[in-house]
Amino acid sequence: MNNYFDYAASTPISQHVLEAMKPWETDNFANASSAHQAGRASYQAIQQARELIADKIGALPSEIIFTSGASEANNLALKGLAFKHLDKKGHIITSSIEHKCILNTCAFLESIGFDVTYLDPDSQGRISAESVQEAVRKNTVLISIHHVNNELGTIQPIEAFGAIAFEHNILFHTDAAQSFCKCDIDVDDMDIDMLSLSGHKIYGPKGIGALYVRNARDSELVPLIHGGGQEAGLRGGTSPTPLIVGLAAAVEHYPTEPTPDEQNFLAAIKQFACERNGSAYVVPTTWSVTFTSDHEVKRFTSNYPWLISQGSACNALSNVASHVLTAIGMTEEVARRTYRISLPPYRINEK
Amino acid sequence: MNNYFDYAASTPISQHVLEAMKPWETDNFANASSAHQAGRASYQAIQQARELIADKIGALPSEIIFTSGASEANNLALKGLAFKHLDKKGHIITSSIEHKCILNTCAFLESIGFDVTYLDPDSQGRISAESVQEAVRKNTVLISIHHVNNELGTIQPIEAFGAIAFEHNILFHTDAAQSFCKCDIDVDDMDIDMLSLSGHKIYGPKGIGALYVRNARDSELVPLIHGGGQEAGLRGGTSPTPLIVGLAAAVEHYPTEPTPDEQNFLAAIKQFACERNGSAYVVPTTWSVTFTSDHEVKRFTSNYPWLISQGSACNALSNVASHVLTAIGMTEEVARRTYRISLPPYRINEK
Repeated sequence: MNNYFDYAASTPISQHVLEAMKPWETDNFANASSAHQAGRASYQAIQQARELIADKIGALPSEIIFTSGASEANNLALKGLAFKHLDKKGHIITSSIEHKCILNTCAFLESIGFDVTYLDPDSQGRISAESVQEAVRKNTVLISIHHVNNELGTIQPIEAFGAIAFEHNILFHTDAAQSFCKCDIDVDDMDIDMLSLSGHKIYGPKGIGALYVRNARDSELVPLIHGGGQEAGLRGGTSPTPLIVGLAAAVEHYPTEPTPDEQNFLAAIKQFACERNGSAYVVPTTWSVTFTSDHEVKRFTSNYPWLISQGSACNALSNVASHVLTAIGMTEEVARRTYRISLPPYRINEK
Repeated sequence: MNNYFDYAASTPISQHVLEAMKPWETDNFANASSAHQAGRASYQAIQQARELIADKIGALPSEIIFTSGASEANNLALKGLAFKHLDKKGHIITSSIEHKCILNTCAFLESIGFDVTYLDPDSQGRISAESVQEAVRKNTVLISIHHVNNELGTIQPIEAFGAIAFEHNILFHTDAAQSFCKCDIDVDDMDIDMLSLSGHKIYGPKGIGALYVRNARDSELVPLIHGGGQEAGLRGGTSPTPLIVGLAAAVEHYPTEPTPDEQNFLAAIKQFACERNGSAYVVPTTWSVTFTSDHEVKRFTSNYPWLISQGSACNALSNVASHVLTAIGMTEEVARRTYRISLPPYRINEK
């Protein structure tokens, strides 16, 4: 797919990943919970993957809980904690520009008695640490704010959110689906208690992700999927060895340099009258671009018949402006001239 | 793995499945929620898979909700319904020999105020329709009993359970992880309202399964994973196109004949003093075998160094007798002489 510029929605699976998965699809297909030799080998491969992923964010292997993706990880973080507080309920701080899986989970938790504060971003799509600080209540149990926005590419000051959470003895969760591998993350330095990540945003397979949980074994998180004791008892279901090994291979071989696509895009976009949204703090590979007129939109899309999105993939099929664009103050009319163009991601150096 | 006889724990991925998955791993890796051409093609492939799987159990395509596996499907069925009744709570009927993901989910639901009746099987591992009938209460919201037991291979009379549920206007859910494709299933004839199935038990990939939900769009089931509106709003997360296409290919190419492994096994087992458990109503490919003495166990395992299990994979690492063997009245001592030998599954003709 030469004209594909929708990498924030999904990436291809790299050759490294496909090759790493293969032996676990064909040579050894045993259940990693089986006690026999083949089962043990599968379990060991998973443990090795766990170590590699944990190391990437400064965590312990035992703190990585494999899930089916970032959506499940986000649900586990929020509901897992909420169900622990089902009697007393409590207050959650999040933002109005989270992924739909966070917002819809919060709406569900509100429906069963939790309070949720949705912080609005500034016009650049940044959530301020001050607004988080002001939102803290006595019964706040969780702050959950994403790291990099999926539509704008805006990087949030999560260290500052983590520090506030730490100071008030509140847990801090971040959805890192759009930042894991792209940005440097250290869960200790950043005071992160839970972190969600995804495979198919980093050239890994679809259907796999993970939730980092600080001191997972003692976390008392209520499992979203109760099962046979897998994943420190926090996530049941037969471990998908090929997908887990593939996720680790994606982390191991994550690119450190842009592809020529980036230069091609930069040369192309210069020819059009448009503005980049969230321009102060953004990752270089996610561009939210508002064209100045419908004419410019037409000129762009006819010259470059690229596979791109309006808003995120999840909003792609609805005809209304995305909640993210609305939250940064865009009108429906301007949002209609706005496109997300996302380039092949790679590790960026923020410092 | 020539000496592998643990197919009830997991099967290999068939060549048909690997080939069906390939194009969606390499040629088209788009997010099925993306509005562009590549996203639409991915979505269409998923819809085609949905039709094929629905057809297998006499359901409508819109009634198939893809999940990460049978454990998630079972959790969605039970919690999805329970969360709908969170205010009033209610009563659930299940059996004491369900998979751990059902039993642990029920224990969780009990901890938040639901009542659960755990029906015991007879010595052959069968749950009687009479015991189900007797357990029904005014506030029973769900009957959840599996189709084929994963340790014994016992086939449960689910049509009778379905009829009782229908008569009392109670929903009936069945965990069909060990029966889907193996046994004929028709959700209408059998009065099944929800049914869980798994990919890696039928030569499909690990990390994929589905929940059949009657009239899914109107079901009011509370999603386990809230997200971006995928799967009729009942299950969020980027659809793993390769896994879903692989699941459908596994259904399409499910074998109708035993492999030579079955004859080899039958010839081998004859040489040992042992008894098959649950022998009245069992699938031909799952054998729970109790050897008459430790000597016979040793003679068997040294002559046939097969990869087999004691109990299910999920119980493999604990040193106690499985809850299933205990439930059919086995002592610890007898359970220690009991092994599950499971052969390559194929479609059986029950009639």
